[in-house]
Amino acid sequence: MSSKSALIVSAHAADFVWRAGGAIALHAKKGYDVTVICLSYGERGESAKLWKQEGMDLETVKVARRKEAEAAAKALDVHDIQFFDLGDYPLDLSSEARDRLVDSIRAVQPSFMVSHSLWDPYNTDHMNTTRFVLEARMVAQAWGHNPGEKVLGAPQLYLFEPHQTEQMGWKPDTFLDITEVWEKKRAAIECMQGQEHLWDFYTNVAKNRANHFRRNSGGQAGGRKAEYAEGFQSMFPRTVDEL
Amino acid sequence: MSSKSALIVSAHAADFVWRAGGAIALHAKKGYDVTVICLSYGERGESAKLWKQEGMDLETVKVARRKEAEAAAKALDVHDIQFFDLGDYPLDLSSEARDRLVDSIRAVQPSFMVSHSLWDPYNTDHMNTTRFVLEARMVAQAWGHNPGEKVLGAPQLYLFEPHQTEQMGWKPDTFLDITEVWEKKRAAIECMQGQEHLWDFYTNVAKNRANHFRRNSGGQAGGRKAEYAEGFQSMFPRTVDEL
Amino acid sequence: MSSKSALIVSAHAADFVWRAGGAIALHAKKGYDVTVICLSYGERGESAKLWKQEGMDLETVKVARRKEAEAAAKALDVHDIQFFDLGDYPLDLSSEARDRLVDSIRAVQPSFMVSHSLWDPYNTDHMNTTRFVLEARMVAQAWGHNPGEKVLGAPQLYLFEPHQTEQMGWKPDTFLDITEVWEKKRAAIECMQGQEHLWDFYTNVAKNRANHFRRNSGGQAGGRKAEYAEGFQSMFPRTVDEL
Amino acid sequence: MSSKSALIVSAHAADFVWRAGGAIALHAKKGYDVTVICLSYGERGESAKLWKQEGMDLETVKVARRKEAEAAAKALDVHDIQFFDLGDYPLDLSSEARDRLVDSIRAVQPSFMVSHSLWDPYNTDHMNTTRFVLEARMVAQAWGHNPGEKVLGAPQLYLFEPHQTEQMGWKPDTFLDITEVWEKKRAAIECMQGQEHLWDFYTNVAKNRANHFRRNSGGQAGGRKAEYAEGFQSMFPRTVDEL
Amino acid sequence: MSSKSALIVSAHAADFVWRAGGAIALHAKKGYDVTVICLSYGERGESAKLWKQEGMDLETVKVARRKEAEAAAKALDVHDIQFFDLGDYPLDLSSEARDRLVDSIRAVQPSFMVSHSLWDPYNTDHMNTTRFVLEARMVAQAWGHNPGEKVLGAPQLYLFEPHQTEQMGWKPDTFLDITEVWEKKRAAIECMQGQEHLWDFYTNVAKNRANHFRRNSGGQAGGRKAEYAEGFQSMFPRTVDEL
Amino acid sequence: MSSKSALIVSAHAADFVWRAGGAIALHAKKGYDVTVICLSYGERGESAKLWKQEGMDLETVKVARRKEAEAAAKALDVHDIQFFDLGDYPLDLSSEARDRLVDSIRAVQPSFMVSHSLWDPYNTDHMNTTRFVLEARMVAQAWGHNPGEKVLGAPQLYLFEPHQTEQMGWKPDTFLDITEVWEKKRAAIECMQGQEHLWDFYTNVAKNRANHFRRNSGGQAGGRKAEYAEGFQSMFPRTVDEL
Repeated sequence: MSSKSALIVSAHAADFVWRAGGAIALHAKKGYDVTVICLSYGERGESAKLWKQEGMDLETVKVARRKEAEAAAKALDVHDIQFFDLGDYPLDLSSEARDRLVDSIRAVQPSFMVSHSLWDPYNTDHMNTTRFVLEARMVAQAWGHNPGEKVLGAPQLYLFEPHQTEQMGWKPDTFLDITEVWEKKRAAIECMQGQEHLWDFYTNVAKNRANHFRRNSGGQAGGRKAEYAEGFQSMFPRTVDEL
Repeated sequence: MSSKSALIVSAHAADFVWRAGGAIALHAKKGYDVTVICLSYGERGESAKLWKQEGMDLETVKVARRKEAEAAAKALDVHDIQFFDLGDYPLDLSSEARDRLVDSIRAVQPSFMVSHSLWDPYNTDHMNTTRFVLEARMVAQAWGHNPGEKVLGAPQLYLFEPHQTEQMGWKPDTFLDITEVWEKKRAAIECMQGQEHLWDFYTNVAKNRANHFRRNSGGQAGGRKAEYAEGFQSMFPRTVDEL
Repeated sequence: MSSKSALIVSAHAADFVWRAGGAIALHAKKGYDVTVICLSYGERGESAKLWKQEGMDLETVKVARRKEAEAAAKALDVHDIQFFDLGDYPLDLSSEARDRLVDSIRAVQPSFMVSHSLWDPYNTDHMNTTRFVLEARMVAQAWGHNPGEKVLGAPQLYLFEPHQTEQMGWKPDTFLDITEVWEKKRAAIECMQGQEHLWDFYTNVAKNRANHFRRNSGGQAGGRKAEYAEGFQSMFPRTVDEL
Repeated sequence: MSSKSALIVSAHAADFVWRAGGAIALHAKKGYDVTVICLSYGERGESAKLWKQEGMDLETVKVARRKEAEAAAKALDVHDIQFFDLGDYPLDLSSEARDRLVDSIRAVQPSFMVSHSLWDPYNTDHMNTTRFVLEARMVAQAWGHNPGEKVLGAPQLYLFEPHQTEQMGWKPDTFLDITEVWEKKRAAIECMQGQEHLWDFYTNVAKNRANHFRRNSGGQAGGRKAEYAEGFQSMFPRTVDEL
Repeated sequence: MSSKSALIVSAHAADFVWRAGGAIALHAKKGYDVTVICLSYGERGESAKLWKQEGMDLETVKVARRKEAEAAAKALDVHDIQFFDLGDYPLDLSSEARDRLVDSIRAVQPSFMVSHSLWDPYNTDHMNTTRFVLEARMVAQAWGHNPGEKVLGAPQLYLFEPHQTEQMGWKPDTFLDITEVWEKKRAAIECMQGQEHLWDFYTNVAKNRANHFRRNSGGQAGGRKAEYAEGFQSMFPRTVDEL
Repeated sequence: MSSKSALIVSAHAADFVWRAGGAIALHAKKGYDVTVICLSYGERGESAKLWKQEGMDLETVKVARRKEAEAAAKALDVHDIQFFDLGDYPLDLSSEARDRLVDSIRAVQPSFMVSHSLWDPYNTDHMNTTRFVLEARMVAQAWGHNPGEKVLGAPQLYLFEPHQTEQMGWKPDTFLDITEVWEKKRAAIECMQGQEHLWDFYTNVAKNRANHFRRNSGGQAGGRKAEYAEGFQSMFPRTVDEL
């Protein structure tokens, strides 16, 4: 496998779109194979619009949500999307699920991983996912887990932007210019038929993060003209050859 | 001015050596013009060995400290070293001193700046320097300060490693491999005749930070074989094209 | 159901008395239906006085603790008190227990909820309860959980005052004047026969929190003459029409 | 003076508009006399567009900035706007300036005050203003300062929304629905001719904060339909009669 | 000088009584020479009761406050009490005042120092005092400050208990049993005629801190029977021979 | 049992050596019975060198790791070493394991306990162990857990030094001089044949922590000449008779 790869772990089916859609499309464009894992469809907790319909049932919701997520993944040029179907609100994060995630991590051998914020009092699925990813990352690094497999190195784990960032204690240390793939992100966003109330919200976020990008890349004295951006918080230190 | 440049602001004459000597030598080697500003000589507070000599006086200490700092700067291939002579323990951080620092910042137009940690209950000079640098950086960005001069962009401010890192609330997010310039850093360290008790301390730091470098660049599964490293904390977010 | 309602979730049988007894009695007086859920009786960990008696057994302790809690609830005009009997030290917070809590939350439809601090290294039951309540609150909001039931809105979760507040990282942002119901709270406190050593402790707390109330409501220049108060930390932001 | 009053302290001439314009207009509509104090015009640091004009000088910038601020204040129905003209980048926060601020605070006797975030590494004027306001508030409460004057009570100090909230460690605990005065805020924003690049930025902020308002006031299950909102962080605890 | 010594730095005349009176009396009893420095009399900001009297003037308030403080110091067996008379609300912390404090520190050569919390948004004098003490401690350690004098070692700086501890971010890590000197502390408290409203408040504090002492010294299984205690936060790490 | 005792809980077989070997040997020398509990052998995650050998299997790794740990324990004069064999990466922290730990705690009746840092994103086993220890400590204090047994008092829980301290949010508040037992610690370290790359790393740590010891015990003006030290963070406040 010669290309670079990245792995996004999303608690519910739509999270990867709002929060990292630009990063996904941009890295796909750069030649990365980007894999998305949705731990659940968000079928119980993030599908209010569907449940308000008469006679709705769980299976129908899951199918609808999966279709949306697959369409969004396609719009973003995702290499592979996996649905773990662990249930939601709350997620059932068993040791079997963890080993499955470890298998995926080792298969992908990501250059970097992306998941949720460390804290989310509104949605414990989100913060439990991050803990779960940290644990799986650790197991994937263990030489004694499925000996003979290629162990994981030490990829960065980026935490993508949560809703209500300040309540989550999330602080971005990295802004990514997604201007050149914005149309793809907007297209993916529009696949989320059940959450139309968030389309403009996350468009505003992307525009305002671009303002932050400009401020930090030079400001009035030559900041780059990014029009859309995404923010990420790094879990681990970077190792560099030049500051 | 076509080359890149960097600016280090050191509260006392020796701080830049222990804490950023590797970064200085490495960037000099990469073609950066590195300027070091020492706000004081550390003549009162960091020259105990000299003061223990019979009949010592302030001017003699300052001269001795300056010589050491100049020798260290030379060993590190510093482009320019400036001594603001503001007094130490405590520093006298006047508005005149600030404007002088602004002038230097604008003259250098650094790609990045480096200074102290945000908190230091042992040494208020250190944390006051960081505040002072933040203020000067802001003034240097103001179009109305000395109109007509080239204003500053938005360079990163790295906080170099303080003594007793955990007491200072300092958390490195960037490890720099300084292996190829280690000999220069050690030579600069040995210029600090008055603080020989710290030579091995900071050699140990460099070796152990290299262990951290390796852990974060791949660990047992291929981390780079850095032998000496330095850690830095970033004050501002990065702006990037690729995660 | 036309009246307002509130829900208190207490890890052990007595917690709601010391920490929120005033809030309970006051809101009952204002016409709220206040429901208290005790996840355990505190039978193993908070009944030392009983266990020091010859021949004591678990069932006897539980009965005694339940009686005390019921008496206290009556003194505070609690609308309904529920005992989940999950065991204590540690609590057994199963998914069944969580669904039971979700049922109660949905049945009560509280205007606000009250529970423990986020951190408690002395007593992991306390902090685990808060996490458990956050998870149940999230599930109660899910349209796909028991479809057809009335889903929960977004009630505030107040964290009541822990023992040794500073060790718990608890910071009150709301002081409630409980002067007019103090006699009820003291009566409830005195129902806790097994923990008489805490009666005066929590009376002192109430008096000192009233001092804080006065400081924050106007100080020497007209602070309200509250004599007894309780403090609470809010988990979520408030939404208001006037500052 | 029978009406209620509020006091906003703005480091530079435009800060009060972007960050608290809605709160100002809303409380004016509710009958509050709202006073705004601009410590400087932002003449050196926040007037890049003017300085890029040929032959610009400080006095001209100050006049232009003052006109914009006065126009914005009028659009927001500000009762009184005061310009302390302390210089900017950096502010000159002398003891005379502090006593002047104390005089204004005592004259206004505000029900609440509003100022900047506690931390801002990009702009030390902002955080220095907050410290300065805390100090002036303390002096205004002192019975021995200008004895005989009416001393200040204990008004809340709200910290309005900074730029790049997460970098400032700012966490809103209060969302204010400003829908009914949005047109006024937008009109005030458009008075800021020199910073047109921020008009849409702060419109996006207001829309997205309304989303947060809805999430916290009931969410999908009946959150109020706020369309524009502002967020604030409280410095002090609230004192209440009902949770 | 063979006896041990301690130094308390109090922003206003009464602070040392409420917050460290027990520690003072206890260490005096153990043979320490305890010196108290009051930076101000609290004449403007903490003497409301006096200022409410007809025709009061600053000098009269200062005299009254000084008498109270001296009486309290006597009750606590203070070795020496010094009044720096720097003014209050706000304190005027000049470089002359700092050098005077350095002189006192060097003269006392304290085994430990005690002062205020690091943060206090209600009272900037308090937190400014702590910064001032840290700076003076640093200068007192400088071999080049008044060469020939005995330099300071590295005494612990304890932060005594502020009012409204949680708002100040103060977290005690040390509880001191003051039972055997409680009567002295109460007597000193009663010297504070102008602040009678705080007598019972701080008696409650002492009783409740004793509960915390018992909890941390063994709890129900043999915690020491302290009846009165004080809490302190350490600024620096301890150095020990046994855990 | 008349001697004092201490209990160290180590997630993996080698952790107690690197992080608390000096404290163990020193307290053994002082007459403490020191018990070490290894929750796992670190067989999967911390035995890379063994797994790189052809044909390695889990049982062989566990035996090898156990031998190393036993040899190290002997070198440190450990009184008793217990292997819980819970598996690693991740640990299986069941309620049975917890009750077993409670039994050990009660049997040992430690004067103090030692375990891992509260946070470790690299290794969730470490932070899960600390939570597990806090829970077991709480259960061991419960009079209703195995009534009739001697309940636990309130021993301090020290958190030993993690790898990459700043990433773990670990802040030492206690430095222990281990100079007199350094040879024993180095001997124990050299028992860890599989992790030779860490021998010098932790020797450097011990030397540099001794520098910190000296800084905090008197500095240039008489700090004790410790040559090797270990740092610890306290979970709970101390209770003292003298500051």
